[in-house]
Amino acid sequence: MKILLIGAGGVGSAFCAIAARRDFFESVLVADYARESADRAVAALDDPRFSAAQVDASDAASVEALVREAGATHVMNAVDPRFVMPIFEGAFAARADYLDMAMSLSRPHPDQPHALTGVKLGDEQFAAAGEWERAGRLALVGMGVEPGLSDVFARYAADHLFSEIDELGTRDGANLTVDGYDFAPSFSIWTTIEECLNPPVVWQDGEWFTTPPFSEPEVFDFPEGIGPVECVNVEHEEVILMPRWIDTKRATFKYGLGNEFIEVLKTLHMLGLDSTEKVNVPVVIGGRPVIAPVSPRDVVAACLPNPATLGDRMHGKTCAGVWVTGKDKDGQPRSTYLYHVVDNDWAMREYGHQCVVWQTAVNPVVALELLANGTWSGAGVLGPEAFDAVPFLELLRDGYASPWGQQELA
Amino acid sequence: MKILLIGAGGVGSAFCAIAARRDFFESVLVADYARESADRAVAALDDPRFSAAQVDASDAASVEALVREAGATHVMNAVDPRFVMPIFEGAFAARADYLDMAMSLSRPHPDQPHALTGVKLGDEQFAAAGEWERAGRLALVGMGVEPGLSDVFARYAADHLFSEIDELGTRDGANLTVDGYDFAPSFSIWTTIEECLNPPVVWQDGEWFTTPPFSEPEVFDFPEGIGPVECVNVEHEEVILMPRWIDTKRATFKYGLGNEFIEVLKTLHMLGLDSTEKVNVPVVIGGRPVIAPVSPRDVVAACLPNPATLGDRMHGKTCAGVWVTGKDKDGQPRSTYLYHVVDNDWAMREYGHQCVVWQTAVNPVVALELLANGTWSGAGVLGPEAFDAVPFLELLRDGYASPWGQQELA
Repeated sequence: MKILLIGAGGVGSAFCAIAARRDFFESVLVADYARESADRAVAALDDPRFSAAQVDASDAASVEALVREAGATHVMNAVDPRFVMPIFEGAFAARADYLDMAMSLSRPHPDQPHALTGVKLGDEQFAAAGEWERAGRLALVGMGVEPGLSDVFARYAADHLFSEIDELGTRDGANLTVDGYDFAPSFSIWTTIEECLNPPVVWQDGEWFTTPPFSEPEVFDFPEGIGPVECVNVEHEEVILMPRWIDTKRATFKYGLGNEFIEVLKTLHMLGLDSTEKVNVPVVIGGRPVIAPVSPRDVVAACLPNPATLGDRMHGKTCAGVWVTGKDKDGQPRSTYLYHVVDNDWAMREYGHQCVVWQTAVNPVVALELLANGTWSGAGVLGPEAFDAVPFLELLRDGYASPWGQQELA
Repeated sequence: MKILLIGAGGVGSAFCAIAARRDFFESVLVADYARESADRAVAALDDPRFSAAQVDASDAASVEALVREAGATHVMNAVDPRFVMPIFEGAFAARADYLDMAMSLSRPHPDQPHALTGVKLGDEQFAAAGEWERAGRLALVGMGVEPGLSDVFARYAADHLFSEIDELGTRDGANLTVDGYDFAPSFSIWTTIEECLNPPVVWQDGEWFTTPPFSEPEVFDFPEGIGPVECVNVEHEEVILMPRWIDTKRATFKYGLGNEFIEVLKTLHMLGLDSTEKVNVPVVIGGRPVIAPVSPRDVVAACLPNPATLGDRMHGKTCAGVWVTGKDKDGQPRSTYLYHVVDNDWAMREYGHQCVVWQTAVNPVVALELLANGTWSGAGVLGPEAFDAVPFLELLRDGYASPWGQQELA
């Protein structure tokens, strides 16, 4: 297995640090638009299997050329979802297999954005599924932690814990704090605004629909000391992926933003500060006063610390999981939360990467190892729930020292 | 009386519209840094007593020259409090009397900003009081609605309603809404941020102290249908002025920002978006990408509608007043709210100016009329409470059709 990793940001760098401890692959070529980021990720490892390159992820031809040049068998996409389609298409053109951790972007319904779906997450990728299948190539999509591990949990529950499923409810929460800051998101505020202000999607009784942002608030009690966090519906890939392979009446994704963060996002939206439409403000450039068109959302991001630099000051745990309700194998009512918790202090001490990026990056490494040793195989555009969950969960626990948990809820 | 009005913004323009209906003065020269604003205010009147000029209010010499050129007997300051000192000094240099509606700015205590006062509101003006007194010239300071009418109410209560005062508590609230906007402040957000994030000042038992912003929240039930509004301590001139002339154990100013507005201001502060310290954001100017240093507070202001343009879409009432507690003339406990309410629909219909600026502007016109006819006179730097309240309240009610109210509280 020769891997081309595209993206040497937080998740890409953590991917390298995790993969470097394993021996299932021959090489990883780390490519980024900013060549120095790729160099830095490689230099941190002291492992001759890793090398660096430059790539333009917005250009499928640039991706295809690099796949061919590197002789890559697998393209691992670790950049912003705006670049999913050119990387996905470039990998296919060069006949490599492909993995990502977020799917092609949605576009809201033109008339009823808070009721009907428009273009859904992943629609553009699934449109090419036949082509991939006929070519015998695999695109394993949504293979991070959420989507990714959450989808593996859903498959595990369907195969081993339930005879009938009412709801697959992904629930994500944390109790992270950052020393020295009253307010410091542990992930990009720019992306969080984008994700949280899109209309959330829900699967119910055989179809998808959308709701207004922050709908159906619910306090979920997360395990391992994290405790209760306010969660709301957010647009996410699980809701699209799970019902394609698993029989469920309902699928939801609720993000434990917490009440404070939800109120901040609502306030930014009310004031128009979430907007990327530019407003005119006076600035001085080169000693001359001018009126500059500024994106309010860029200003919000510039006022907050860069989350990639905060790992040393972060404390607490992050939890990803799926709350499954329905009937157990004996037909009795069952309500179970399958989850994976990462402690930031542990991730920083063991890997030098903060827990949120570490938890995202470990899952595609596990998946690639299963593909390398032939435990997982397939062709087409497939989600994680298309594969047997047991070997994945065992390898994550035993090979990567990262156990998962299971809790029965009342 | 020949008046030089400096500032042709919202309040200055409303001042002209109100004064034009009265005959106590010979002329008003309306001066603004933006000459076209002064022209516009004059053109709206069709009254030969009004004319326009240009002035630089940041330069005392420019103010002095214009006072002499116009032969002004009274300088009316209707600009931003940053310009108080040059106008105050320019008026004195030209031996004119002077009125303003906000006093020279405070600077926080360097070490304990939320406990001790540093330079207080008006300190710079009061430092010149002896000079003004010796020259026989009057500076009537804080003569808007709050400070201004509120101080007149305090004097009225001390003279006619109370034998002993525990607290003079200015309370300002409104129930204004703006059609078509979820969030549209009825006054400058830039100034509101400045005012509300300064440490509030309180007078208690013979001395002033400060507190953290938004301290001592209290729900005050405003009269005439406005109803309960959440009020918090805000730095304001009344707390400085009232104890100088009126014997009271305590003086406070609480602003009925309402819970939503307080939360918005707190959120802006938490995210650093209230700051005037510049952050770097990418912009495109003249087709070239550059990094521009931008003031986050300017961006917040640019995202919101200009309140001066919202009068037609505003509905509701604004209330200014003083809640006085203590003992009545017979030594019995008394708790009385003296207040003045303006309905926006009335102010727009009668004067074409929204209620908040109309209510601010009417009070200095009344004061000038009392000075012109000799009912009020004095020398030095004096607050409104240094003068007899009764003729002011009668003239406001009878001459300006704007009655005030009095309500006994439980």
